[in-house]
Amino acid sequence: MAVTEPRRAGPRTANLAAVLRALRTGPLSRTQLAARCGIAKSAVPGLLSELAERGLVRPAGVLPGNGRPSRLVELHGEDAYALALGIEADRLSALVTDLSGRVLAERAEAVDVAGLGLQRGMDELARLARAVLPGPPAGVAISVPGLVDPAAAVLRFAPALRWRDAEIAGLMAARLAVPADAVAVDNDANLGALAESVAGTGTELFYLGGGTAVGGGFVSGGTILRGARGFAGEVGHIAVDPSGERCSCGRTGCLATKANLAALLRAAAAPGDPLHDPAPGVEGRVALLKDRVRRGDQRAVTAVHELGVALGIALSTVVDVLDPDVIVLGGYFAELGEWLVEPVRVELAARPLGQARVVPSALGLKAPLRGAASLAAERLFANLALAEEATV
Amino acid sequence: MAVTEPRRAGPRTANLAAVLRALRTGPLSRTQLAARCGIAKSAVPGLLSELAERGLVRPAGVLPGNGRPSRLVELHGEDAYALALGIEADRLSALVTDLSGRVLAERAEAVDVAGLGLQRGMDELARLARAVLPGPPAGVAISVPGLVDPAAAVLRFAPALRWRDAEIAGLMAARLAVPADAVAVDNDANLGALAESVAGTGTELFYLGGGTAVGGGFVSGGTILRGARGFAGEVGHIAVDPSGERCSCGRTGCLATKANLAALLRAAAAPGDPLHDPAPGVEGRVALLKDRVRRGDQRAVTAVHELGVALGIALSTVVDVLDPDVIVLGGYFAELGEWLVEPVRVELAARPLGQARVVPSALGLKAPLRGAASLAAERLFANLALAEEATV
Repeated sequence: MAVTEPRRAGPRTANLAAVLRALRTGPLSRTQLAARCGIAKSAVPGLLSELAERGLVRPAGVLPGNGRPSRLVELHGEDAYALALGIEADRLSALVTDLSGRVLAERAEAVDVAGLGLQRGMDELARLARAVLPGPPAGVAISVPGLVDPAAAVLRFAPALRWRDAEIAGLMAARLAVPADAVAVDNDANLGALAESVAGTGTELFYLGGGTAVGGGFVSGGTILRGARGFAGEVGHIAVDPSGERCSCGRTGCLATKANLAALLRAAAAPGDPLHDPAPGVEGRVALLKDRVRRGDQRAVTAVHELGVALGIALSTVVDVLDPDVIVLGGYFAELGEWLVEPVRVELAARPLGQARVVPSALGLKAPLRGAASLAAERLFANLALAEEATV
Repeated sequence: MAVTEPRRAGPRTANLAAVLRALRTGPLSRTQLAARCGIAKSAVPGLLSELAERGLVRPAGVLPGNGRPSRLVELHGEDAYALALGIEADRLSALVTDLSGRVLAERAEAVDVAGLGLQRGMDELARLARAVLPGPPAGVAISVPGLVDPAAAVLRFAPALRWRDAEIAGLMAARLAVPADAVAVDNDANLGALAESVAGTGTELFYLGGGTAVGGGFVSGGTILRGARGFAGEVGHIAVDPSGERCSCGRTGCLATKANLAALLRAAAAPGDPLHDPAPGVEGRVALLKDRVRRGDQRAVTAVHELGVALGIALSTVVDVLDPDVIVLGGYFAELGEWLVEPVRVELAARPLGQARVVPSALGLKAPLRGAASLAAERLFANLALAEEATV
């Protein structure tokens, strides 16, 4: 390690972080840790001593066996917090976990984020974070509904918020008085995909999230595919209806014109219908729509079915390009899963290579925040390991 | 290492392979090797002794410096051969490199592979391989024009050859008397993408190859994205023309209906035109077409331009989903690059996120075979390292 670059991770840091990560699933022996982390067994005691000195691991009894009993260790660090934050057009949310991933606190508030603007929006989010945090966070991740350049940790564009080139990570780091590199920022659909991947839903997993806009994220073997600029996974401008509406991009019949919630509700109910009142928020309005579909309201049934067909046409292309093992319908699409999954499957089956499981997200509207919690935990592990290495 | 699984790679094997790989770029010191391979400097001498005992590395003078001069090592192993093989509908090709990547021999033959069928086609390919090999190969990779399940090393379907579920790796291993796991098989577009990535053309690189069919491959950070079944990168069934031809998949206006060479030539010349004679092969027919476009033959000019527009429409979707930094037009598209690149760029620019460099493949029709050579070298390194570990 070059002493002039104290925050650059060396191999020892990577091993410390790997040990912390492995222990997240529960107590392990030294032999188990060596195997899980792919490190030499002789290196494990030294790593554990360092982590124990910092109060991050502790003894956890013995593993009974045929020969010599194995001593177990477990995560300790009750004061090491990971913070996940979510920004949506009409809602802010926060979730705190400890080192082991246990949820310590969770809170969401209805806030007109777009109306507040960037600085006041971030003020509100920081206030919510402080309200749930028991102490300073060592890892933070923020889910945003827009295109994120992960290298620069900058939100390039969030149409629903009307934010452009917003340095979200720096703004939140200043408000929470943590180092800027303790804060990660990512696209909500990428994080939805990560959450479903961590939950074991699939290994080559495409997540399609519906909300005020439609967005996609792909996780391959546990890693988010971000692309060259962080924009991978966008599907809103795949053509799904040559005779459809004009899209804001200037083309005709893009998925974006059909898959956003407002468009679905316009198709589902006549002008003036209570469904068009934005007051109940995304959840409330989708609940109303669901109720009508359940009752057999023909216009609502047709609108949801046609949305499913449009999603299926776009997803057929996604399957050709990415070959996922599973497609997860997230956001408000998850709420409508019982009517959307089938038309999507039919469209996929019509293509020569269109094979992939299609499931609604079990995490529903919370998937992006859960993914942010995973990402925040990774930052937490990396930062704890780094802090340790600097003292060696 | 479990002695019951002698061919499973342990950490030491990975390090030995990493040392061999790093030395491919030229002689290095021990310090440089440790840094390049991400291994402890103290581990390097032991790894080099093992490789030297096997005759795979040798001293290569000293690196002059301020302090103590650093001793350099380089690859040796003149008898360690990597074999790349290419199967196309009308051609077989073979290329042999040594450990350092130097091309020792290369040969191609016009063969009606589809007419021969699987067993006789593989006989011919093995004959060609033996004709160029100076000795037994330690790593082999085969490029095929079809969908490959990389886990099973099986060619699932190659329409141009009419081969289905063909166990290419096993068939070639038997013919060359090498272990089956010394032989890799991959899709030609995946290998084209790998070759361009190794050549430094881009880091998030999408390769679109034109031939009897159209196929795509994506390399992200040096790794081929294969998807769940090995089918990732397929773009032939993206809709590019709602009023176009009926596709074999049952839909209308798929890219596949426009981008295959026969379709392009039908658009470029009237029935009965000499362009429709298959005898000159892909290269010869494309050369004839190129000549007409150069001379300003209006029908040929229009056909090539319209192909560019169709490629651009399909690639717009690819850019949205994968966000590559570069798109490489390969196969016969590379030969027509000076007329195809511009319409592709125009289509990309019409999309909100459509930014990516577009270049013709500098490796032209040879890109897949070059990619196979890279993959064969990886097999070579892995096998040499494994053989070594087994003797420790």
